Amino acid sequence: MKDLFEKFDFRGPLGQYQDIAHGYFSFPKLEGELGPRMQFRGKEYIIWSINSYLGLTNHPEVRKADAEAAAQYGMAYPMGARIMSGETDAHLQLEKELAEFTQKEACLLLNFGYQGIMSIVDACLSRHDVVVYDRDDHACIMDGIRMHTGPKFAFKHNDIEHFEVRLKQAKAEAEKRNSGILVISEGVFGMRGEQGILKEICAFKEEYGFRLLVDDAHGFGTLGATGMGAGEAQGVQDQIDIYFSTFAKAMSGFGAFVSADKDIIEYFRYNLRSQLFAKSLCMPMVIGGLARLRLLRTLPELREKLWRNVNHLQNGLKDAGFDIGNTGACVTPVYMHGNEYEAGALIYDIRETYGIFCSIVLPPMIPKGQILLRLIPTAEHSEEDIETTLNAFRSVRSKLQDGTYAKMGELLAQGAVEGVL
Amino acid sequence: MKDLFEKFDFRGPLGQYQDIAHGYFSFPKLEGELGPRMQFRGKEYIIWSINSYLGLTNHPEVRKADAEAAAQYGMAYPMGARIMSGETDAHLQLEKELAEFTQKEACLLLNFGYQGIMSIVDACLSRHDVVVYDRDDHACIMDGIRMHTGPKFAFKHNDIEHFEVRLKQAKAEAEKRNSGILVISEGVFGMRGEQGILKEICAFKEEYGFRLLVDDAHGFGTLGATGMGAGEAQGVQDQIDIYFSTFAKAMSGFGAFVSADKDIIEYFRYNLRSQLFAKSLCMPMVIGGLARLRLLRTLPELREKLWRNVNHLQNGLKDAGFDIGNTGACVTPVYMHGNEYEAGALIYDIRETYGIFCSIVLPPMIPKGQILLRLIPTAEHSEEDIETTLNAFRSVRSKLQDGTYAKMGELLAQGAVEGVL
Repeated sequence: MKDLFEKFDFRGPLGQYQDIAHGYFSFPKLEGELGPRMQFRGKEYIIWSINSYLGLTNHPEVRKADAEAAAQYGMAYPMGARIMSGETDAHLQLEKELAEFTQKEACLLLNFGYQGIMSIVDACLSRHDVVVYDRDDHACIMDGIRMHTGPKFAFKHNDIEHFEVRLKQAKAEAEKRNSGILVISEGVFGMRGEQGILKEICAFKEEYGFRLLVDDAHGFGTLGATGMGAGEAQGVQDQIDIYFSTFAKAMSGFGAFVSADKDIIEYFRYNLRSQLFAKSLCMPMVIGGLARLRLLRTLPELREKLWRNVNHLQNGLKDAGFDIGNTGACVTPVYMHGNEYEAGALIYDIRETYGIFCSIVLPPMIPKGQILLRLIPTAEHSEEDIETTLNAFRSVRSKLQDGTYAKMGELLAQGAVEGVL
Repeated sequence: MKDLFEKFDFRGPLGQYQDIAHGYFSFPKLEGELGPRMQFRGKEYIIWSINSYLGLTNHPEVRKADAEAAAQYGMAYPMGARIMSGETDAHLQLEKELAEFTQKEACLLLNFGYQGIMSIVDACLSRHDVVVYDRDDHACIMDGIRMHTGPKFAFKHNDIEHFEVRLKQAKAEAEKRNSGILVISEGVFGMRGEQGILKEICAFKEEYGFRLLVDDAHGFGTLGATGMGAGEAQGVQDQIDIYFSTFAKAMSGFGAFVSADKDIIEYFRYNLRSQLFAKSLCMPMVIGGLARLRLLRTLPELREKLWRNVNHLQNGLKDAGFDIGNTGACVTPVYMHGNEYEAGALIYDIRETYGIFCSIVLPPMIPKGQILLRLIPTAEHSEEDIETTLNAFRSVRSKLQDGTYAKMGELLAQGAVEGVL
């Protein structure tokens, strides 16, 4: 046998770059007020890595609600799981308003999104049931599915034909076992901005009798006529049986919620393991959540401003000949080609020379040889921020193409570039 | 096939009592300042259900830190996962101080304990590795183990002979697979207060070469000469390879941490899925956490007061002939016998007649026919609180024995007792 820790010698898909990446490419410290301009290592950058789509983090009413609730209750309140000692009127009020806004009968707050949706998937699936899911679903959904010991069918990302193939297999299994089928997709896939093909999936509901769970983390507050999300945008909100979203994006907070028919929510209230056996969402986030939701509902101008910025940025990139894939949301991917050293050099240069801070997605999250830069426009970005960024992207593309970054990448890998790390 | 939701017709082990339990026995709303006296349905009760062992929730320095941090940063700060955009100096400072206090080389904060330890278990176990765990480990550990597809061996709760049997089987598997062994237990089992048999388990470490993960949720801050926890109390802190605790008990907050050797923590930093793909712990809880830890370390009188109360309560119960099992921590279980209706009547009566609010654990969490009342003494309880409670327990025991609760239980079940629900 081996020591359990011996395998840690390989530091993992992201950890393998730790020595040259830590503190700069990974775990960078952004300082100052959250927003489109923040400090990194003492210099100001235009920031495209903050999911506060509507800019609610800095809205005076949000800051006031957060501060007053924390002053009144402290961060501990309430103590315990809701079923034991952590229930409050404020939790129920936020649930009522979220249910109403998402056009569902009922809603349940979740103390954290990641474990919340894991427990939802877990609670929905007995070992006889069958799950069908998009291969690109978020890690939290995958972890929920990993707890399932019954049949699992992944379909190719947003591929409706492959979905039908998998659904047929799922139905055969479900019939054999006299069990049910859960389909899981996302409103918006956060890495590439593509909307899930919810409308196409829903067209199979009647024939196949499955139930649909949608994680709309990036859609809630940003998509649809009222900001209700991807279900509203695609006209299928009523066909989403279980609607989930985090508060960590447009709601500028943490925690999450799930909304559905009353019977389903009441079942979840008594059967989600991570909620029964862990602490209630803290009061400042609940009271702060009420303030955020009120603004999200009553200030459509925030969403309009957001989309002006999204369109400006995405059209600008497209007009300049960049490949931004099939984004159907605010998430703005920019696809380029190069190895990981070129990618590192590009990120370094776009930061240090052009003052642009954006996130990069590396293999194995994307195919080898691909560079994926990911921009998150918000309502707080200015036209100047966008123009500066578009110019910077044109410049770094030239340098990537003329071999500048191939050379710089080698130096970076040797730690020979002054100022980094 | 069936509708996926058809199985929800059975409302689950806890949900089956929802109609008669909701709002009173389950999901009660406690109001007012957190502490030993709170309001429930407009009346004041002595509260034994709040895990704020040291009473830090109400310490002025904690409340000041929480309020000022929320005013300065809001509840959104920082946005994003730490690896992307959620890293701050305050997070690193709290990690440094927790590592030092728990006598480990390094520490990693976790955005929530439940998903944090799930991901730790997951990251430690390749599919070839073997896990050996106490059958009574907390739900979050069980959920982590459920993601593991390799060999799993549960041992009878705190049974060292059965542990050795399982360990032998685990070793045979690990040798066959050339893999490692992870053993998981708890510092304190939160339902019954028993300390995990860590010292006995550690005696097998040299011969069997396993690694040990300990969840010390209820031990951290309450046990050991300095409050370091169950490892210190048992003299084996240095043999715990991975030490985990939540902030939801003695630290009076939320979130959690794990401390271990530097290499292990750095591996976790880059490989815990729920931390890489979900939001960083919010700033007010990190700054508030620094204040809590400082008080926990520098005010041993809080722990001394806690233990005076624990000893007063536990000795009082024992002297009165109550069965409090094998608690070796603050958690104070009181075991009685009766069916669920008698249990309900007892809880109702001890609240309404005697003004005592405590938690009850019902089957299937405990064997049928058993009643488990669970008291959590804190440093804030007064001698009067304890004496009043001891008197109440003597009274309700008589009523349980003379059949009063059998009769009242029937009426409660019919909804015929005025004032409840």
